Amino acid sequence: MTSYQAPLRDIHFSAFELHNFADHYRQLPGAEDLTPELCSAILEESAKFAETVLAPINSSGDLEGARWHNGLVTTPKGFKQAFAAFAEGGWMGLSYDEQYGGQGLPKSLETLTAEMRSGANMTWSLCPSLAKGAIDTLKAWGTEAQKQTWLAPIIQGRWTATMCLTEAHSGTDLGLLKTRATPQADGSYRISGSKIFITFGDHDWTDNIVHLVLAKLPDAPKGSKGISLFIVPKFQLKDDGTPGQANNVSCGSIETKMGLHASPTCVMNFDDATGYLLGNEHGGLQCMFTFMNTMRLGTGAQGVIHSQIALQKSQQYARERLQMRSLTGIKNPEGAADPIVVHPDVRRMLLTQKAIAEGGRLFVHYMAKQSDLRDRAQCEKTREQADQLLSFLTPIGKAFLTELGLEAASLGIQCFGGHGYIHETGVEQNLRDARIATLYEGTTGIQALDLLGRKVLGSGGQLLGLFTRQVQDFCQQPHPETIQPLTDLLNQHCQDWATMTQAIAEQAMANADEVGAASFDYLMYSGYTILAFFWAQAAELALEKIETGDDCDGFYQAKLETARFYYARLLPRAQSHRSAALAGADSLMKIAESGFCF
Amino acid sequence: MTSYQAPLRDIHFSAFELHNFADHYRQLPGAEDLTPELCSAILEESAKFAETVLAPINSSGDLEGARWHNGLVTTPKGFKQAFAAFAEGGWMGLSYDEQYGGQGLPKSLETLTAEMRSGANMTWSLCPSLAKGAIDTLKAWGTEAQKQTWLAPIIQGRWTATMCLTEAHSGTDLGLLKTRATPQADGSYRISGSKIFITFGDHDWTDNIVHLVLAKLPDAPKGSKGISLFIVPKFQLKDDGTPGQANNVSCGSIETKMGLHASPTCVMNFDDATGYLLGNEHGGLQCMFTFMNTMRLGTGAQGVIHSQIALQKSQQYARERLQMRSLTGIKNPEGAADPIVVHPDVRRMLLTQKAIAEGGRLFVHYMAKQSDLRDRAQCEKTREQADQLLSFLTPIGKAFLTELGLEAASLGIQCFGGHGYIHETGVEQNLRDARIATLYEGTTGIQALDLLGRKVLGSGGQLLGLFTRQVQDFCQQPHPETIQPLTDLLNQHCQDWATMTQAIAEQAMANADEVGAASFDYLMYSGYTILAFFWAQAAELALEKIETGDDCDGFYQAKLETARFYYARLLPRAQSHRSAALAGADSLMKIAESGFCF
Repeated sequence: MTSYQAPLRDIHFSAFELHNFADHYRQLPGAEDLTPELCSAILEESAKFAETVLAPINSSGDLEGARWHNGLVTTPKGFKQAFAAFAEGGWMGLSYDEQYGGQGLPKSLETLTAEMRSGANMTWSLCPSLAKGAIDTLKAWGTEAQKQTWLAPIIQGRWTATMCLTEAHSGTDLGLLKTRATPQADGSYRISGSKIFITFGDHDWTDNIVHLVLAKLPDAPKGSKGISLFIVPKFQLKDDGTPGQANNVSCGSIETKMGLHASPTCVMNFDDATGYLLGNEHGGLQCMFTFMNTMRLGTGAQGVIHSQIALQKSQQYARERLQMRSLTGIKNPEGAADPIVVHPDVRRMLLTQKAIAEGGRLFVHYMAKQSDLRDRAQCEKTREQADQLLSFLTPIGKAFLTELGLEAASLGIQCFGGHGYIHETGVEQNLRDARIATLYEGTTGIQALDLLGRKVLGSGGQLLGLFTRQVQDFCQQPHPETIQPLTDLLNQHCQDWATMTQAIAEQAMANADEVGAASFDYLMYSGYTILAFFWAQAAELALEKIETGDDCDGFYQAKLETARFYYARLLPRAQSHRSAALAGADSLMKIAESGFCF
Repeated sequence: MTSYQAPLRDIHFSAFELHNFADHYRQLPGAEDLTPELCSAILEESAKFAETVLAPINSSGDLEGARWHNGLVTTPKGFKQAFAAFAEGGWMGLSYDEQYGGQGLPKSLETLTAEMRSGANMTWSLCPSLAKGAIDTLKAWGTEAQKQTWLAPIIQGRWTATMCLTEAHSGTDLGLLKTRATPQADGSYRISGSKIFITFGDHDWTDNIVHLVLAKLPDAPKGSKGISLFIVPKFQLKDDGTPGQANNVSCGSIETKMGLHASPTCVMNFDDATGYLLGNEHGGLQCMFTFMNTMRLGTGAQGVIHSQIALQKSQQYARERLQMRSLTGIKNPEGAADPIVVHPDVRRMLLTQKAIAEGGRLFVHYMAKQSDLRDRAQCEKTREQADQLLSFLTPIGKAFLTELGLEAASLGIQCFGGHGYIHETGVEQNLRDARIATLYEGTTGIQALDLLGRKVLGSGGQLLGLFTRQVQDFCQQPHPETIQPLTDLLNQHCQDWATMTQAIAEQAMANADEVGAASFDYLMYSGYTILAFFWAQAAELALEKIETGDDCDGFYQAKLETARFYYARLLPRAQSHRSAALAGADSLMKIAESGFCF
């Protein structure tokens, strides 16, 4: 029950059939030679790595957990070896610059392979995922010398990296942080302070760890405009660039937490550690956002992954577990009972998981494609538009997909009945591991404020319009009769999106709390509408394949039925979010602070 | 952060102000002397026990866990002593017959005290909760001799009890079970088989454990009509009724599970163990339902408990944690930031928890009152009506409240941000412990089928009508202007409930799968409407208190605001459930069994 099958078939459908990555790569500078055959070979190798190296140590890693002893962290059996194999295979550098030892392939291809690794073993995958944030940050803000020194070993999988952001009293509010950086005569800095929640802050995998640490300079302005980012290695470097003496960086303890047991969540103490400024003085917030935007895209994809794991395990169990007879007559006369997949309510749960996993995948791949365009497109206008679309979609992708990922993971347990509560089925670990996703890299509430406050209202509706025009263009195309009811509904949701936005904007002019009060439900409405956009496209493509006789295994028919399910049974939730988003701030703000509990 | 405060103020509001338990007890045979003062004294003692004995060992119990060694189970530090104190205090027998050593008080009072114990330590409380199911079953089906022998020691807290129902291949489908009972010449039976998921199947608390075991007699009819129930003690009794030699009952192992770590979930092996028939031959299913109905009421209350725990911890954290400034201006100028309770989205989460906890409590107390009436009312018609109401409400109370309890528990983590994922805050344990509640004693899917299939359609709508007439009567009373918008909405929901039921009934005549396809969303719609009924009553009562100047601490104002929140932001969900319930079976049944995953 705990094994993992990489969903290659559906990844192919989403990326290459619907989003047409083959054409996309042909036109993308530097990716012109990336043929569909080459992509398939890479994806198959990646699937093999996920299924045979990472999946077998997922459940054992959870039971064993990371250990802290005398300031040193060890990870469960097989974890270190898996990272060595990963580095050896050149996977860390897949989408990074060849001049630093990477393979220079597009980020979207990295997204496809990362899904499989994280699906097989989310906990192990956290460390390479964090490295991606660090790589993008070093690339964007490092000097050429810093890139040669710090970036190359990370890209080559020789070292790993962290982001040291949170302090006990300072999470979302970075202006409150206390870690100090004191300039030294040689141009370096002495860093002192204590950080918490540092994922893989220490481990036994590599001979160095590069910490990116937010700290304040002595003359720092108050608040979040006064933070700077520093490179602080676990070991200082010798003249030849290899790790030398220890750098006053130590792991004080690791947390006991709900899930991700194999991932050490470290308290990291910096005690006059030597660090090097990355980017500008007091420019740490901007650097941090480079890191954060990479991580948020990856976290949104985790929602898809948790849904996929739940779906895989649940559907297998539902087809094997015999219990009760179908109400419409015996379906499995040879057995003592029918498989529970005959019961409508079990199907409701499986279809919910499927609609989230596969619809979410379409959404994630759309963003991955925009990410390629933002980074590499020839035309500046295309790059700009992609950047704007990503800026609008990232908070939705991050928060909506992880919220739905939690639901799907919880339904994974529900499909197993009491057995789902037991470790060996793997579904309870999936929920425990998934539960972090709506919290880290900015909670759902923070994403919602970012979306409605900064992105939508902050752009005067311009970013919203950029996306909804695509939806409207799609709706206005001619559609087959079977699909038209879906696109009609989609079109209606798209119009309601605009009028809802307008209504909230007007409320917000009178009271700033109206933004926060509407934000969560606004984000959820947006997410359901976006998923409807992708499900309508999937349905139309599936229908085309069915009608041209290309559906030998029923893949497209199942896709079409799932789209119908989504529209009939999940999309109605958008309306309840719309009602709540329009309910106004009074329904939240009038109760006294002391009134919540007596 | 892990301590627990018994919500005495809100328990009093619900039971004594809204549901008027004082008058209710005055009219209830055997409870006439139960004055409000006496009730208060009992509740305060119960709160003290929960807060000082049970709460301190909740978190440590989770970390330590139950242990199995060589067939024997030990529970974490303090658990055995807590049970001894509980038994010593006479709490086990609070609502049971004085002739067996109980105190003869109404069940509803037991419900009030049980909430506090379970809130303080759900895991410990599972064992006494199970005893309640066993007591009701022994009371209903035992001979007088059996009651003297087995019931009295359980009521007195000298022994505990279990229900041994599930087998590895037989959960919901009891007809599949394989445990055998062979009649002996002396009237006893030899029981052989293996049961799983037996909560507190073994432990170190008492010198005997009474297992109620479902098994099949040699001549049993097929299916669920062929099961019988047996009393099988861990130790056989000597002539004086005290435990003697061991009875071939052994605990083979305990499960590693998501939560409830301190509660041993046992594989129980019966190897020619001596048992005694309880109730009629082949009448086990009926006996099991006596047990199950008691447990389902208690499990519904757990949804309230998980919400209450989440609310308590979250609101305390939200008032202490300083992070960011309010968008409408600084609220805490002395501090480095404002407490997060100023942010609208944090309030949305707190109000959701509060609306579920306190609305759910009103629902649970209503059912507890009906439970008293069913058991004790003078007039047969009252007893019958209470029985019918309970029969209708039990599946909703069980499933809806536990589903919402999960949501509230998950929001409890969300309010803490990343800190919520860490064990020491207590909120992640709350979700792990809560996650069982929608699974055991019949999953949500099973409750939904029971509600729509057996109770609503099975009674030709009669049971639904019995309840909705109360709602309509309330709506038709004159209401203050402030309350009228709520009762108008409630009335509309009540009418829609009836028309939706009619529509599903018509669909179901053509296709039996329509019942299963609509059932989950039908149940959720019902739950939201029922909670709206109770919140409207609470709002009206609160307004009355405010207007008569009785709101010195803001309790009633907060109640009124929470009612408004519920109507504005949670009740809209009922509409999306209605849409889904009416979507028809095709949206679930047309996809092929092999189509869920490729």
